[in-house]
Amino acid sequence: MNYIVILGLVAAALTTFSSLPQVVKIIKIKETKDISLGMYVLVVAGIILWLVYGLLIGDLPLITANVVSLIFTATILGFKIKYK
Amino acid sequence: MNYIVILGLVAAALTTFSSLPQVVKIIKIKETKDISLGMYVLVVAGIILWLVYGLLIGDLPLITANVVSLIFTATILGFKIKYK
Repeated sequence: MNYIVILGLVAAALTTFSSLPQVVKIIKIKETKDISLGMYVLVVAGIILWLVYGLLIGDLPLITANVVSLIFTATILGFKIKYK
Repeated sequence: MNYIVILGLVAAALTTFSSLPQVVKIIKIKETKDISLGMYVLVVAGIILWLVYGLLIGDLPLITANVVSLIFTATILGFKIKYK
């Protein structure tokens, strides 16, 4: 693997796991008042479409990254609805 | 364009503009207490790497999407630091 591919993989790992600290924070503080519902509706809808796109073109990195992202962002959306 | 390409473009548009409602919400309420600092540090770092990756491989859609995403997410990170 050349350094450009490694750079892309690090970028993908960062953006894919970026929502994890938000999940942990909500579990601790049980508050979501300042978090935008609209943002997570758009994110979850977008990630579902990315996942369908990944499945249709058979792209494993796209499928993997979006399954992980969907777990975190759908959890945040669920918390936002629960604690609103 | 076939429907798979259109699906990918809609997915990209949704995830790219998803942070906009959060920017608008913070401008209105001037509160970021429930928002995770760690999340936005990871997101901004990840998007900068995606952008560098896009520039290195010369991928215009990747560059465009990540410039837009960077504007929104860096704004949220700035607000998080300002209102913390």
